[in-house]
Amino acid sequence: METVEVGLGQDSYRITVEASVLERTGELIEAKLGSVSGAVITDTNVDELYGKELLSSLEKNGHDFLKLVVEPGEASKSPEVAENLYEKLAETGLNRDSVIVAFGGGVVGDLAGFVGSTFLRGLRVVQIPTTLLAQVDSSVGGKTAVNLPQGKNLVGSFHQPETVIIDPEVLSTLAPADIRSGLGEILKYGLIRDRSFFDRVIESSEIFRQAEDHEELEGIIARCCEVKAEVVQEDELDFGVRRILNFGHTLGHGIEAAAGYGGIKHGEAVIWGMIGESWISWDRGYLDEAVFSNLVEALTDFNLPSLPTDLPKEELLDYVGRDKKVKQGAINSVLIQDQPGNVVVEEVSEKEIAEAWNFLRELEV
Amino acid sequence: METVEVGLGQDSYRITVEASVLERTGELIEAKLGSVSGAVITDTNVDELYGKELLSSLEKNGHDFLKLVVEPGEASKSPEVAENLYEKLAETGLNRDSVIVAFGGGVVGDLAGFVGSTFLRGLRVVQIPTTLLAQVDSSVGGKTAVNLPQGKNLVGSFHQPETVIIDPEVLSTLAPADIRSGLGEILKYGLIRDRSFFDRVIESSEIFRQAEDHEELEGIIARCCEVKAEVVQEDELDFGVRRILNFGHTLGHGIEAAAGYGGIKHGEAVIWGMIGESWISWDRGYLDEAVFSNLVEALTDFNLPSLPTDLPKEELLDYVGRDKKVKQGAINSVLIQDQPGNVVVEEVSEKEIAEAWNFLRELEV
Repeated sequence: METVEVGLGQDSYRITVEASVLERTGELIEAKLGSVSGAVITDTNVDELYGKELLSSLEKNGHDFLKLVVEPGEASKSPEVAENLYEKLAETGLNRDSVIVAFGGGVVGDLAGFVGSTFLRGLRVVQIPTTLLAQVDSSVGGKTAVNLPQGKNLVGSFHQPETVIIDPEVLSTLAPADIRSGLGEILKYGLIRDRSFFDRVIESSEIFRQAEDHEELEGIIARCCEVKAEVVQEDELDFGVRRILNFGHTLGHGIEAAAGYGGIKHGEAVIWGMIGESWISWDRGYLDEAVFSNLVEALTDFNLPSLPTDLPKEELLDYVGRDKKVKQGAINSVLIQDQPGNVVVEEVSEKEIAEAWNFLRELEV
Repeated sequence: METVEVGLGQDSYRITVEASVLERTGELIEAKLGSVSGAVITDTNVDELYGKELLSSLEKNGHDFLKLVVEPGEASKSPEVAENLYEKLAETGLNRDSVIVAFGGGVVGDLAGFVGSTFLRGLRVVQIPTTLLAQVDSSVGGKTAVNLPQGKNLVGSFHQPETVIIDPEVLSTLAPADIRSGLGEILKYGLIRDRSFFDRVIESSEIFRQAEDHEELEGIIARCCEVKAEVVQEDELDFGVRRILNFGHTLGHGIEAAAGYGGIKHGEAVIWGMIGESWISWDRGYLDEAVFSNLVEALTDFNLPSLPTDLPKEELLDYVGRDKKVKQGAINSVLIQDQPGNVVVEEVSEKEIAEAWNFLRELEV
């Protein structure tokens, strides 16, 4: 078992990473919040695999939860689905003491977190992420969101959970693409903040395919949460250093959007994005040739799905620009300086993005 | 001119109360936030009367605002209208530095405040309330909300504004019922916290009908904001003393809901509610007969619209219970103890609510 403390004053909380912790969920929630009632929000996939186990653990510990199940997939992260959940919560008479348990991947975590942060002006939320991506990224840090037709995550809140409970055993039922997607974000933590961690993950990446060496898995997931917690502690509301968490995401979001959501997994797009943004770092002379080549070699060694290379460059640039226009007013990117583990956030030009895209298209993987 | 400082640490802000301050809005926003861009959210009534004046003041000071206009009335305080606003904000490319100006009564303040607090995970919001009710109540304290079919204000956030700008001159265009509605909340502040203020308002209530003695109006509005600020400072998230602001609202909400929203103004229902809840205080022996009679006499002297006395008691109780069930789990009420200005929050029974309702029905006004 590993635990990580996220230190945010009154909003501080603990992340518990432990194989089979799912069956102890009721116990952990009781230790933190006492006997509570509320709603578990999950999707049909997760519900089918693990719903019974979770609910029975909650029940065993005297909690009283109703279960609300949404369709899996990005389409559920919408204002309409949120409204539907609000109405169900209102009908079942939740009150301000109630607790929302977000049980699923990133979509469920963001959606249930948002609903929890706004129903009755904010309930307490417990995050139980069930994908590798959600375990190492979206469940930690308090960002919640729903999408608009105009872009992803345009509506949301900062609402820290009461606690985060992570069970690496649930990874055994994930598809290889979902494992790769999580790996993208895991490698990112190494590249922005901890070079030796990057090397460790590259060496032991096989364990993610089997999800059997629980101790090593727990260690790697906990280290990711720790790095994310450090960054979030320095900049909870994302006006400064938290931006380094976007490494690979400027180009990655563009690739994801242009491929059509679902066309490529988020973390896979981020791996491509990290290669492209490393290219910009190299092109600017921030990285020397040998370091850059090693990086490309390491990052392409994951059976990544092919890029949609027929994608018109204009469309990609349009997506990259749109995302940033709404969010910051300029195209900013995270660049590696000197060595993996050391990054800067700088404005990049459309030309650099286009050239990085050309580099990716011509890359042999 | 009067100013009130709301002390909430990093979230502190100033309320400016000044006749004709509307034409200085651009200047005040510049002094606080610098030159900014964003969106003014208002309704068609307010827009027609004062839209031009506000926008020209913003423009004169180098701000760049687009205007979004909703229909007047409670129906606009919905998740659907919020979503519509989100999409317009996304289409016009607002970014995280943008500012939302909420320009209107309580509906606009709550709706625009909610949209502002959730678009891009939270923009800065300026409140410019244009009804007496909004000026003394909803624009101060950071509560934002939209309604669900299951009840009012079930979805929302706590999001303090950057500043609140109050122009008593705009009151001259309000209907008498809207003035009375504001008076309900004004009298409430006296009754929960400041007896001499209650007496002062009772004596000078005529000024609200003319809205001409600006100095006295500014003074009364500022005192309300001050009392509300004191209470909010002690309990920003409404888990304790902030509940005293609900004086008159337990029964008042029931009357409002049972009469059908719009059937009676919020603050008018609150005046009825305060009389009823004072009756419970008297019935419990918290208030002696003479004090209670004086209170009833003072509160019924406002040409209040008749109560919907044909309202089935069961329906009223159902509304009172529903409101409380969702929000707190028990029917709590604010009761006056000994003297106006001194209150306690206590659980009340359905029987007491029903008897208070009987008292109101038989009251000759």
